Amino acid sequence: MQNLQINPQRLWDMLMETAAFGGTPKGGVCRLTLTDLDAKVRDWFKAECEKVGCTVRIDEVGNMFALRPGRRNDLPPIAMGSHLDTQPTGGKFDGILGVLGGLEVLKTLHDLGYETNAPVMLVNWTNEEGSRFAPAMLGSGVFAGVFDRAYADSREDRNGVSFKDAIEAIGYRGEVPAGAVELGAMFELHIEQGPILEAEGKTVGIVKGVQGMRWYEATVIGKEAHTGSTPMNLRRDALVGTAKLIEAVNAVALAHPGAVGTVGLIESKPNSRNVIPGEVFFTIDFRHPEAPVLDVLEADFAAAVAKIAEATGLEITWKRIWDSPPVAFHPDLIEAVREGAAVAGLPAREIVSGPGHDAAYIARVCPTTMIFVPSKDGISHNEAESTTFDECGAGAQVLLNAVLTYDRRFAA
Amino acid sequence: MQNLQINPQRLWDMLMETAAFGGTPKGGVCRLTLTDLDAKVRDWFKAECEKVGCTVRIDEVGNMFALRPGRRNDLPPIAMGSHLDTQPTGGKFDGILGVLGGLEVLKTLHDLGYETNAPVMLVNWTNEEGSRFAPAMLGSGVFAGVFDRAYADSREDRNGVSFKDAIEAIGYRGEVPAGAVELGAMFELHIEQGPILEAEGKTVGIVKGVQGMRWYEATVIGKEAHTGSTPMNLRRDALVGTAKLIEAVNAVALAHPGAVGTVGLIESKPNSRNVIPGEVFFTIDFRHPEAPVLDVLEADFAAAVAKIAEATGLEITWKRIWDSPPVAFHPDLIEAVREGAAVAGLPAREIVSGPGHDAAYIARVCPTTMIFVPSKDGISHNEAESTTFDECGAGAQVLLNAVLTYDRRFAA
Repeated sequence: MQNLQINPQRLWDMLMETAAFGGTPKGGVCRLTLTDLDAKVRDWFKAECEKVGCTVRIDEVGNMFALRPGRRNDLPPIAMGSHLDTQPTGGKFDGILGVLGGLEVLKTLHDLGYETNAPVMLVNWTNEEGSRFAPAMLGSGVFAGVFDRAYADSREDRNGVSFKDAIEAIGYRGEVPAGAVELGAMFELHIEQGPILEAEGKTVGIVKGVQGMRWYEATVIGKEAHTGSTPMNLRRDALVGTAKLIEAVNAVALAHPGAVGTVGLIESKPNSRNVIPGEVFFTIDFRHPEAPVLDVLEADFAAAVAKIAEATGLEITWKRIWDSPPVAFHPDLIEAVREGAAVAGLPAREIVSGPGHDAAYIARVCPTTMIFVPSKDGISHNEAESTTFDECGAGAQVLLNAVLTYDRRFAA
Repeated sequence: MQNLQINPQRLWDMLMETAAFGGTPKGGVCRLTLTDLDAKVRDWFKAECEKVGCTVRIDEVGNMFALRPGRRNDLPPIAMGSHLDTQPTGGKFDGILGVLGGLEVLKTLHDLGYETNAPVMLVNWTNEEGSRFAPAMLGSGVFAGVFDRAYADSREDRNGVSFKDAIEAIGYRGEVPAGAVELGAMFELHIEQGPILEAEGKTVGIVKGVQGMRWYEATVIGKEAHTGSTPMNLRRDALVGTAKLIEAVNAVALAHPGAVGTVGLIESKPNSRNVIPGEVFFTIDFRHPEAPVLDVLEADFAAAVAKIAEATGLEITWKRIWDSPPVAFHPDLIEAVREGAAVAGLPAREIVSGPGHDAAYIARVCPTTMIFVPSKDGISHNEAESTTFDECGAGAQVLLNAVLTYDRRFAA
């Protein structure tokens, strides 16, 4: 195995070539799912896979499966995969590295005429980002049975175009029923989208799972009034109450190691310089790798809300709108990644994914894990997203090593 | 003087009649300045004034001056006035009560054939609200020399229509140069737009002046990052810093009796549930009747900013964008209002205006004061704005009494 080396220059060239499908002046990519630009990169992807002897099948929600046969084609394939769609002001690496890294693995195996035991497969999952059609991870979600096809078809973008119409317009509605392709395992290479690897000087993240995540919406009702004529003691300022709640979210997360808590969205009404805010809506995002800790975060926040409502006389309502349980990846695949990084001589650390990924849904139907490489300054979902030439190459190399390590068990 | 009584029913009927020019389903009024609806109420106003023997002149920024001659027409007139324009979702009383209360005074004098010593004048000031053309109090501001006509003409609404085009379109560009009309004094009757009179059970506010007001804009720069993948200790969350600043504004105002401090407008970027806010813009409004206290509020806030910037590592910039010094009204007119309220047997208290008013600019060119009546729940700039039949009548009665009291000095 030590002799199989991916070609980092070829990988980098593919990253730069595909970045032109939706490239932005600031060096990012705007390639929303199921648009004409997405069709272009899908066509390109299909042709490249076929060049190296793969057969490409497409399922009914547009997921693309490129199969490279192995020695024992009775076995379900060892898959690699991620997504080629991007955020509206996305970067060149989020998702794309996982697909093109997998393509580089296929090209390397092809160049060397290497025959794996199990077949190897590369997947491009549809609509991971969710920025055109909510929710995110829709293609892998339908594949894993989290959603059904009718639900996916019904999703609409901001212009009222349905997923159904969009996928048919670009000709990527496949014949294969969703979930009909059997996977033996899946490795997803991805950029970290966070600052931990960079901060610790590690090149590889051995991803043990995905954090649990709970989303909440809160509304604070006070009383709208004129800023000039309403004495401080007669005010019920919804924004001052919200400020205390924002600090509470922050304090609750800080009090529990490994937890994160964020108020990402805030809307104050009427949002006028000379009117005391009468109503504020905001969102809360709590994450932790363990569900019991998520329960504690929620309870601590509830206590803070009660205290602040009591102290301020404001009416505070809130509810949990989404609960994504923690995902534990498969120990055998995690071990394969650890070995793959060690063989490549790359500094690695275990990590838990903060963001959700296709792998989180695929883990429900087959052994799954992920490989992370650093994101410069932790920046992602942003045109400034950056991972170096060497880091991209390292990721693809570990992906190859992990697939071959895992494939060894089928030697018999 | 005790024998002169205004007719509260006639006043109320006028309030309800004019509320139909731009009446909203929720019982408010949407009558933006210099629109066709504004033209309708202006035409109505002119006709009503002429019915009671007044001559109406219009100046070059649309201010309307209805003159009722007195015994000594060499004297400059004693004016009453306010504005007939409203906020987009305004009420039936803000500004309107001051104009129609003055019209009721003119009708009462006319009915009784009462001859004042000095002439009496009623003014409708253009664009007090500033919600179509910023800034507010534009007509009275040009009259008082704060702005010039060219500046007023250049103001544009959100559709790019200029003040110049709007005033010409409705035919209310008058011949009289702005500021050419001489005023001997002005009394402005207005709703309080705050909760103080109602809270204390007083019907009349004897307005001693207008608070000083300083407006600021602040920007907090942190670092935009993924909520799931960015540990608490590696974050620079601009919204958490802003929360501390909002609390600081509140605390600074609370620490100084008579002061108010408000963050009315907040805009967080990118304002997405799963992105740590990287930049927040917000406004601050500090008011107090004394300029030295405004200096202290500003210094205290500056100290809080420095402390919060130090503690959070956020980049916080802020600047003062507007400084409206406190206005002290004229003691002789204040005394006339006090006497007017006493003669009417109405419970009254001294008060300082929180909001700005046309009277604040007019005070620069002639003796001026204001009379306040209660606002239910302190609500204003809102369709729910409410002042009772009796309170409206009381306001007009005090206005009449104050004008006649002040007029006595010209008996000689």
